[in-house]
Amino acid sequence: MTVLLATDVDAAALGLWRGLLQAALPDERIVTDRQTVDDAEIDIAIVANPPPGTLQGLTHLRLIQSLWAGVDKLLADASLPPAVPIARMVDPAMSTAMAETALWAVLSLHRGFFEYAAQQRTQTWQPLPQRRADEVAVAVLGLGEMGRCVALRLAAQGYCVSGWSGRPSTLQSMATHHGDEALTGVLRAADIVINLLPLTPVTQGFFCARRFEAMRPGASLVNLARGAHVVDADLLAALDRGHLQHAVLDVFNTEPLPADHRYWRNPHVTVLPHAAAQTDARSAADIAAANVRRLRAGDAVQNLVDRTWGY
Amino acid sequence: MTVLLATDVDAAALGLWRGLLQAALPDERIVTDRQTVDDAEIDIAIVANPPPGTLQGLTHLRLIQSLWAGVDKLLADASLPPAVPIARMVDPAMSTAMAETALWAVLSLHRGFFEYAAQQRTQTWQPLPQRRADEVAVAVLGLGEMGRCVALRLAAQGYCVSGWSGRPSTLQSMATHHGDEALTGVLRAADIVINLLPLTPVTQGFFCARRFEAMRPGASLVNLARGAHVVDADLLAALDRGHLQHAVLDVFNTEPLPADHRYWRNPHVTVLPHAAAQTDARSAADIAAANVRRLRAGDAVQNLVDRTWGY
Repeated sequence: MTVLLATDVDAAALGLWRGLLQAALPDERIVTDRQTVDDAEIDIAIVANPPPGTLQGLTHLRLIQSLWAGVDKLLADASLPPAVPIARMVDPAMSTAMAETALWAVLSLHRGFFEYAAQQRTQTWQPLPQRRADEVAVAVLGLGEMGRCVALRLAAQGYCVSGWSGRPSTLQSMATHHGDEALTGVLRAADIVINLLPLTPVTQGFFCARRFEAMRPGASLVNLARGAHVVDADLLAALDRGHLQHAVLDVFNTEPLPADHRYWRNPHVTVLPHAAAQTDARSAADIAAANVRRLRAGDAVQNLVDRTWGY
Repeated sequence: MTVLLATDVDAAALGLWRGLLQAALPDERIVTDRQTVDDAEIDIAIVANPPPGTLQGLTHLRLIQSLWAGVDKLLADASLPPAVPIARMVDPAMSTAMAETALWAVLSLHRGFFEYAAQQRTQTWQPLPQRRADEVAVAVLGLGEMGRCVALRLAAQGYCVSGWSGRPSTLQSMATHHGDEALTGVLRAADIVINLLPLTPVTQGFFCARRFEAMRPGASLVNLARGAHVVDADLLAALDRGHLQHAVLDVFNTEPLPADHRYWRNPHVTVLPHAAAQTDARSAADIAAANVRRLRAGDAVQNLVDRTWGY
């Protein structure tokens, strides 16, 4: 019984992960090179963006545990052994990091800090009108672990928060909506829209001209989910004509963002290098290890992905 | 019985304040020009940075109510009638605005958002190591209404917060310190130092070479109180030699900050135009009016300034 650790991270990070996982799972043999053992011995794969084909033909796999929260790249690998349970990473430390980034983006937009940064570049001193947090409407799209954490943290700061998800979902002390019909009203009411949807064939290109048109003039977009949720040309057009005020983007259709991309130099775009919520190996290794122990003990593995829904 | 409203705000803002105060105090005569009434009729002054000398010789004054939280400029006016009680503005909405700015500054420093902004200007894509909030030590100097609100809000976000004040002060669920001896340890332990001290003869020039030297290498300063707390040349020297990492400055020795000041173009300085917590007339007018009503009813006026301490 062997665990295959398969990722695209660099050697130093791989060493860190392997050390943490081995410490948490002293009874498991953890290998990082499939060629060093018989395929039949590998019954668990712990993965983080494994190169496509890495798991092909591993017929004895009983669990694929992702170290990343998003599994869209993993599921896009057609060679993935079918019917093997896939578990996502659900780590409170990661949700907290995401909530910090969302809160920073909302505070920056609400209190004009992006504008003050632009003022500093031209030595301009101009205090802006100050709104209270309860005068700022924030819509959180996607109410999975991270979306829920973000929505609750923003509400605790006094923002007027509403939540939307594709499937029905409820959240204590907050208005939640779901489905296509409700979406127009949610978009229309928000000063700031935060995207934390899963990336699936249904949500690809979600933020297109039609959706930007539904947003309130002067509203802003914060994309913390996946670059493929956004049609870049449509977003740039909405910003250029002044319909949208600002976009905070952590994720992109191509990463790293190419040096000549228009986002870099657009004064209405804040670019982050996919750093909104990095997996913290210290906590995530323990969470992955706990699922491995559940499998060995015959207990139910947690945070399983529904391949039909894609998350 | 007449209320003199004396400020240096522009005509539009003066009209707003006058309207709000008159609505809250329908029985009071509110004048904005001292010349239009007998001095003997003026027994209350509501002020916001009144030009020096404005209140000179008003011998019937029973209360000076400030619309601003800081009264250092007011107390510096030697012509101020002695022995008249002075009340500061203490408005929860203002403390909340201050806490928002402090939280934004701390999140920006903790999560590298100032560095990512610099990266964007050079089309650089480089995620930075991610710390948890509980790994970031924040010291809040000054535990008045605003300092306490800031400290509690940061602690609620998971930061490792300690408080320091000149006079003894306690704060639930947080380490607080006071006095000169404790200061060195507080400064040494902090990754981020937030200044919310009152400006008095004792705290003028508080952040000088000696205090920067006491701070941890790589620490950052967030000054949300008064420009005169900081010796600019010493701060620039500490930043230039890399001892301090960054300074977020909302207040300056000269405001607006002169166009040729070195702060504007220093990549390790974030300049805000004294906008960390603007007084919200909507709530502050009601709070000032409530103190006027207390005086008329013979009740104790709130938030009185101790002229000996200077706040």
